[in-house]
Amino acid sequence: MDNGGIEEKMKTALIQMKVGAEKEANLRKAERLVRQAGQNGARIVVLPEMFCCPYDNSCFPIYAESKGGRIYTALAEMAKGAGVILVAGSFPERDGDKLYNTSFVFDADGKEIARHRKAHLFDIDVEGGQHFRESEVFTPGDRVTVFSAEGHTFGLAICFDIRFAELFRCMSLAGAEAIFVPAAFNMTTGPLHWELSFRMRAVDNQLFVLGCAPARDESAPYVSYAHSLICSPWGTVLEQAGTEETILYGEIDFEENRRVRSQLPILSARRPELYGMNG
Amino acid sequence: MDNGGIEEKMKTALIQMKVGAEKEANLRKAERLVRQAGQNGARIVVLPEMFCCPYDNSCFPIYAESKGGRIYTALAEMAKGAGVILVAGSFPERDGDKLYNTSFVFDADGKEIARHRKAHLFDIDVEGGQHFRESEVFTPGDRVTVFSAEGHTFGLAICFDIRFAELFRCMSLAGAEAIFVPAAFNMTTGPLHWELSFRMRAVDNQLFVLGCAPARDESAPYVSYAHSLICSPWGTVLEQAGTEETILYGEIDFEENRRVRSQLPILSARRPELYGMNG
Repeated sequence: MDNGGIEEKMKTALIQMKVGAEKEANLRKAERLVRQAGQNGARIVVLPEMFCCPYDNSCFPIYAESKGGRIYTALAEMAKGAGVILVAGSFPERDGDKLYNTSFVFDADGKEIARHRKAHLFDIDVEGGQHFRESEVFTPGDRVTVFSAEGHTFGLAICFDIRFAELFRCMSLAGAEAIFVPAAFNMTTGPLHWELSFRMRAVDNQLFVLGCAPARDESAPYVSYAHSLICSPWGTVLEQAGTEETILYGEIDFEENRRVRSQLPILSARRPELYGMNG
Repeated sequence: MDNGGIEEKMKTALIQMKVGAEKEANLRKAERLVRQAGQNGARIVVLPEMFCCPYDNSCFPIYAESKGGRIYTALAEMAKGAGVILVAGSFPERDGDKLYNTSFVFDADGKEIARHRKAHLFDIDVEGGQHFRESEVFTPGDRVTVFSAEGHTFGLAICFDIRFAELFRCMSLAGAEAIFVPAAFNMTTGPLHWELSFRMRAVDNQLFVLGCAPARDESAPYVSYAHSLICSPWGTVLEQAGTEETILYGEIDFEENRRVRSQLPILSARRPELYGMNG
């Protein structure tokens, strides 16, 4: 099809890896799985939130690195080596005296093409369930993140960001056709809201939403719900992993967005003049 | 409990009635079921979208009436007779040369306390599924609707309105503790998005969302999915009807909103300064 070289479908791989305590071992595993995904034809590969650091406030400052450091360089090389666009999960990023939960994206030449700093920090205290206060360690990002690659526009958010409909609407209005969400829901919020949230953001914004989580490790201080998934703009779960370490493959069919948007007009039927209170 | 006379729980009834072609018969049935709900202790009673008119573009102009007409007066009397707050579903409202899909709310004295005109009209054309163009007949409303009753604040939307996260956010930010949605999803969108939409609006806004639909009638030109439901601020379906004519009872526990909001802060963690694109 003559479409200016822009592909209408894109094979994607979500790396649902088990994260251990050793940073270098996590990086080596990520490298191996990203390469494998590239060899299997994936054009975009996604790593989970905190793929090389235990999800624990006490670990974040210790594992933190700056842009250009060992983790960053390894990720750029991973993308280039595998020849894929790499949505590189997230790691604790040090910038001056601040720490961020940051996701970088690299193109197939290993060049950074996007950076998202988690904008909504994960502070919860559920009675009889999960407690966590990311804001004790991290500074929140202050940007909505979209980026272009291979003629398409993508959105990028991290975990708790998905709870904010406004953020996803912003990405959608900025032209996103698929939104990647490195994430790590837990055993309280996962069963309650994981699939629900991804499905509804996809339905509301009439685009693909993909969530990549660490595999479940019951012995970890923070237990990931896992269940990485790919939701279509109809809100259908196209692919979903279980709890084990695995690579989840699926296809983003950009044409499907257009079909949904013409059959069930939501984005074009918005009444922004009514939403003035929504500041 | 001494709380200035404001009750912390409120029994609610959703009238999932079968709607026929005869306006007067529909009104009589509504009156009987609303009275029954009141006798069973309901303080707020909700009727479905277009509870006295077949859901069909050809019927709307014929069944339409003005505020103060026969339907309006019957509804006010229904509320007073049953001694309940009546979220009076919707009917085709004539105002000058325009028609609206309008929901009125009456207090237990039969006094009108709110009016919502459907703000997002139902225009869809799903391949191999539902086709409908409400905008051929109706003018959309131009207001977000919240109202106060018995010391609490409520939101009001109609059916397709639920597809717009912004509208629900506006009601929530305006103080709504529960949102009533007279609705009539169909056999295409119902299985896909009915429960999903109600659950997610409840989770996002940390409040109760209640949907009241007509009972299913396979012989009608437009077949209602039915399944009236009450969702908690955790996104749990507390009560859900099947497809038959029934009254669905449930309790709004206002204290539950506060518990959810303190354990899983979403509303208070919004970053409106980032959502500037959301215009």
